[in-house]
Amino acid sequence: MSDLIADLPKGPLTPFRETATFDWKALKVHLEGEESIKFKNEVYAVLSRDPIFARDFSRPSTDEYREINHKRWKAVLEHQFIDDFFAELERTQDLLEILETYDQGLSGRYALHANVFFSAILTIGTERHAEILEKRETMRLEPWPHSTRENSSSPLHTMEQSSVGLGISLNQPLTRWCSLVRDPNNYRSLPGITIGDMGTKPGVWDGVENGWMSFSNHRAPLWTLLNKGCDVTESGEYKSAYSSSRERQSVSLGSLSAGRIGIVAKGANACRLAATIAIRYSCARHQFGEKPGSDNERAVITYPLQRHRLFPILAQAYVIRLYQSKLMNHFREYMMRMVGGEKSPELAELSKEVHGLSSCTKPLATWMGVAALGEARTCCGGHGFLQSSRLNNLRDDFDPSQTFEGENNVLLQQTSNWLVAKKAAGGDLKSPMGTTDFLVDGGALVDGPVVRRVLGAYTWLVHHLIAKTEMRHKELKAQGKSSFDVKNESQIYTAHTLSIAYGERVMLSWAQAFVDDAPIAFKSVLQRLVNIFALDRIEKHLSTLYIGGFCSGGSFGEWVRNTLIDEETLLAPDAISLVDVIAPPDFVLNSALGSSDGRAYEHLMAEFRRHTDKRTPFWGDLATFLHHKQQSKL
Amino acid sequence: MSDLIADLPKGPLTPFRETATFDWKALKVHLEGEESIKFKNEVYAVLSRDPIFARDFSRPSTDEYREINHKRWKAVLEHQFIDDFFAELERTQDLLEILETYDQGLSGRYALHANVFFSAILTIGTERHAEILEKRETMRLEPWPHSTRENSSSPLHTMEQSSVGLGISLNQPLTRWCSLVRDPNNYRSLPGITIGDMGTKPGVWDGVENGWMSFSNHRAPLWTLLNKGCDVTESGEYKSAYSSSRERQSVSLGSLSAGRIGIVAKGANACRLAATIAIRYSCARHQFGEKPGSDNERAVITYPLQRHRLFPILAQAYVIRLYQSKLMNHFREYMMRMVGGEKSPELAELSKEVHGLSSCTKPLATWMGVAALGEARTCCGGHGFLQSSRLNNLRDDFDPSQTFEGENNVLLQQTSNWLVAKKAAGGDLKSPMGTTDFLVDGGALVDGPVVRRVLGAYTWLVHHLIAKTEMRHKELKAQGKSSFDVKNESQIYTAHTLSIAYGERVMLSWAQAFVDDAPIAFKSVLQRLVNIFALDRIEKHLSTLYIGGFCSGGSFGEWVRNTLIDEETLLAPDAISLVDVIAPPDFVLNSALGSSDGRAYEHLMAEFRRHTDKRTPFWGDLATFLHHKQQSKL
Repeated sequence: MSDLIADLPKGPLTPFRETATFDWKALKVHLEGEESIKFKNEVYAVLSRDPIFARDFSRPSTDEYREINHKRWKAVLEHQFIDDFFAELERTQDLLEILETYDQGLSGRYALHANVFFSAILTIGTERHAEILEKRETMRLEPWPHSTRENSSSPLHTMEQSSVGLGISLNQPLTRWCSLVRDPNNYRSLPGITIGDMGTKPGVWDGVENGWMSFSNHRAPLWTLLNKGCDVTESGEYKSAYSSSRERQSVSLGSLSAGRIGIVAKGANACRLAATIAIRYSCARHQFGEKPGSDNERAVITYPLQRHRLFPILAQAYVIRLYQSKLMNHFREYMMRMVGGEKSPELAELSKEVHGLSSCTKPLATWMGVAALGEARTCCGGHGFLQSSRLNNLRDDFDPSQTFEGENNVLLQQTSNWLVAKKAAGGDLKSPMGTTDFLVDGGALVDGPVVRRVLGAYTWLVHHLIAKTEMRHKELKAQGKSSFDVKNESQIYTAHTLSIAYGERVMLSWAQAFVDDAPIAFKSVLQRLVNIFALDRIEKHLSTLYIGGFCSGGSFGEWVRNTLIDEETLLAPDAISLVDVIAPPDFVLNSALGSSDGRAYEHLMAEFRRHTDKRTPFWGDLATFLHHKQQSKL
Repeated sequence: MSDLIADLPKGPLTPFRETATFDWKALKVHLEGEESIKFKNEVYAVLSRDPIFARDFSRPSTDEYREINHKRWKAVLEHQFIDDFFAELERTQDLLEILETYDQGLSGRYALHANVFFSAILTIGTERHAEILEKRETMRLEPWPHSTRENSSSPLHTMEQSSVGLGISLNQPLTRWCSLVRDPNNYRSLPGITIGDMGTKPGVWDGVENGWMSFSNHRAPLWTLLNKGCDVTESGEYKSAYSSSRERQSVSLGSLSAGRIGIVAKGANACRLAATIAIRYSCARHQFGEKPGSDNERAVITYPLQRHRLFPILAQAYVIRLYQSKLMNHFREYMMRMVGGEKSPELAELSKEVHGLSSCTKPLATWMGVAALGEARTCCGGHGFLQSSRLNNLRDDFDPSQTFEGENNVLLQQTSNWLVAKKAAGGDLKSPMGTTDFLVDGGALVDGPVVRRVLGAYTWLVHHLIAKTEMRHKELKAQGKSSFDVKNESQIYTAHTLSIAYGERVMLSWAQAFVDDAPIAFKSVLQRLVNIFALDRIEKHLSTLYIGGFCSGGSFGEWVRNTLIDEETLLAPDAISLVDVIAPPDFVLNSALGSSDGRAYEHLMAEFRRHTDKRTPFWGDLATFLHHKQQSKL
């Protein structure tokens, strides 16, 4: 089993590896599965040998970046790692994970061209679009069958400047088209279509063309309308299979979660990369000590504050990932039932639950991920700022995950709306995935293991915040506010916090379920990670727990804080091995600070030495300027 | 008076300006002073006419950036805005502020070449370096008088790889040299010196060469040692004027604050820029409403949650700036007394106070600044991510302020060490700047205006955390821990929080003092800003206040939270005008979203249209790839 995973190089990290209480390779196999590891090894082997994937620490221009990204995207398709990405969903996830840790611009380009495009046709297209779908197997992406059904067409016209974008509205309802926009022979835009780019973007997203489009009486063939549930007749009449836009929306509610669930994984990847780079560097980096002099300097990872800043990030990397893969399993089942045409009340409930859960955990995961990269960067001091650390770049790369598929704060409203309505509706509070079952009991201060105590506090908190939100709604309604204002004015410290508390509770309870089922060899180290996650998150709610009356006096708060510090101390011997389990290979990580050999200084110096004794190209101008100024004074 | 300040263009922001309760131009004059505004107007006028300062939203390569930055730096010197930057400290501050908001790479280059270099010579050089100092008046920066005093020299040799950098150690003590490292005729490094660059960096810092240097038996002339307080004889013996390194350190303690106090201003500038861009955009941006359809969409600034995210940033921009300019005044007086040779116990106390205060407020201000830019960016949704928003770039630009001149978390220890020692020493708790005077009384729940109540809580908190830190020290000492470990193991929720609470309390009380002295016309709007700062910051300490027993039950916590939301609602009519007071001119701001005319969409579309109908340069390769694949299947 363990020969699936290569040994890591000996070096400065070796002593930190020798203190581990578990076998890191065995844990990796337990978490990822042999099949996934084998597949990823194959991909890594191919990519690491292909020169187009070689990188250094310099920064290409926008044009260069887009061309490199195009070539890498071509190479990924040519290597044909996946035969049919609908049939091999888990391998597709593996591939996306690799590309995402390598360069999100590349995973973005790959996913947009393949998954997003074909998924849209699969879910909202009909038999008239089947010819396109067939092309998915080899991801032949020329997007258009040379069809002759061009007779009927519908004029499209973008209404106003502020609606320039990639969503097109036809009368009121939002409809989606799968329409040629460029001439395939010369790639010029078709008549009546203007296409442009949105300009330079930060980080790796600069390697992806983000377009805008406007239409001026462009005629698109009518059959290109993705017409599941709605259609336009040849005479231009709009027909919907739904009695109301509300019904239409509720059917598509769950499937809207696909993107968000994918983005939850970005949060896990951001935390993985942050923890890997900063914890390895913190072992390699020695600073201060009892006496002056470099002999006495300690590895900065031995400082309790450094652990307190980094170990919750390591815990998040694990917890978000465990949570996300369970959610993805649920979601696949859900989609199969949907595509199979099931129309049960239980499926409708599941649809709402998937929507509610993805709408709060996408924000949570991406906030944690972006914050993790920022914290990791400052944990590496000045070196963390260099391009060769990769941390600032990664922060720019993951930053948009906070506004993709819904700005995080706005998205959170979906969850609280659902929870409050569910509670108000009365009846069975249990849900298909079981994430609201805890609402049956009230939650209280309980004794026992860490997670049990923290879950008790979360249960109380969610109840408290539902009640508080309801009360606030009543107050505002009594003041005659519109339902729109009622929702807007009950967010801060109320509905907003409710969605966060619920999402964290589900993440925590699913991670705990994984630990409960884990083999004895990993149970204790995984439990410690989950404890750290639990304590670190509930710590941020202490003030609300006190204000609301869940606890009083110092004991609960002191217990949370002291136990967190204790758990961080106890995790220390395992930290580097826990990083090794989740770290991508060095060529994917591409960080001088986070290399698996721990030789951060040697990698930094190698980069520094690449820039040795070069005079600045404008040295002559500088010399003339200074000398001239000097003389003019004389 | 008001004709000093140009009117702002009419447009979408006009209705938001019409609700202001004060005259924004008058407030600007009150805050900055006529002389400063006149000077800045001159500089703005010159820079805006000089083509080298024109910018768009694209991103230059490292080499291009450094050359542009060099040319801009030359232009700033050639325009000779300042005659003698030692004599015109306030104008120097004004100029740096302009350059910092324009491009920190430029302000960095300017300040490093001018202020930092000459200040070092002024403070730790002696009469033998006077010839260099004379050059400061016109900032002739050729760094070397063609001296003949080259006979004695001292070999320098960098000991180990991890010490490659710009600090050079000679035996034990850190000594500073002001030594030629390149041949002025050809800019090649001198024998025994290797100079290199640290590679690509994020944001505007890529426009500044960050060097490393190593020495191999290079002989530097002995007179180039900056020898105030220490010297090396011609026979190589090291002599110090101080009996211990501790004494040596304590003398230079206060002067070490210069850089940190400058960096506090970066926090204010980061908050200014964040508030300007995001609040103006939030007025221009309309989204959602009671009914579907764009007519009903509301400006996002009307959403309470959006205000709750942005108004504390606006408050920080004001409070940090008010605090920083008072601290700078104190610091100037302090430096004059130091340079004048005063050696009083009161000056020694002041030295410690300046050090303690700058060591906690530099972290606070820079954390607030970087967090503000991140929050502002997501407050602008997807548009906030574009290069044309400038927010992500600004975040990268301000990011290193968190590790400049001491990593923030490490720096905080300086403050807590000083406060705990001061309390333990007993005697007079009052201090030269008065920032510890509040320790005389214990602090308690008090009634009255917002800031009075919040200051009461802070007073209690600082007392509580000093006591908690002392108790923890005793526990750890009793366990036989070394004094190094005692400090390390008493940071989290203890000494670390103590430094934060003390720093915030000083910032708040100094801002309040400014409001107390403000003319009646601005008092109420300024008071609201200070209230928001007070409530937003103390909210983050609520859990510690509850755990420690300052309060119990819901009332204090509810009061903090509800009052904060109320104050944010009441501030809304003044928000845009408060932004106008602190916003730099549009060409300096360089953000499509933050323009003073509020035409965010027009500026975005103008940028988008610059990239219209361009086929990607590799379109042919793409077409061949897709077409070829297509055919191979047939």
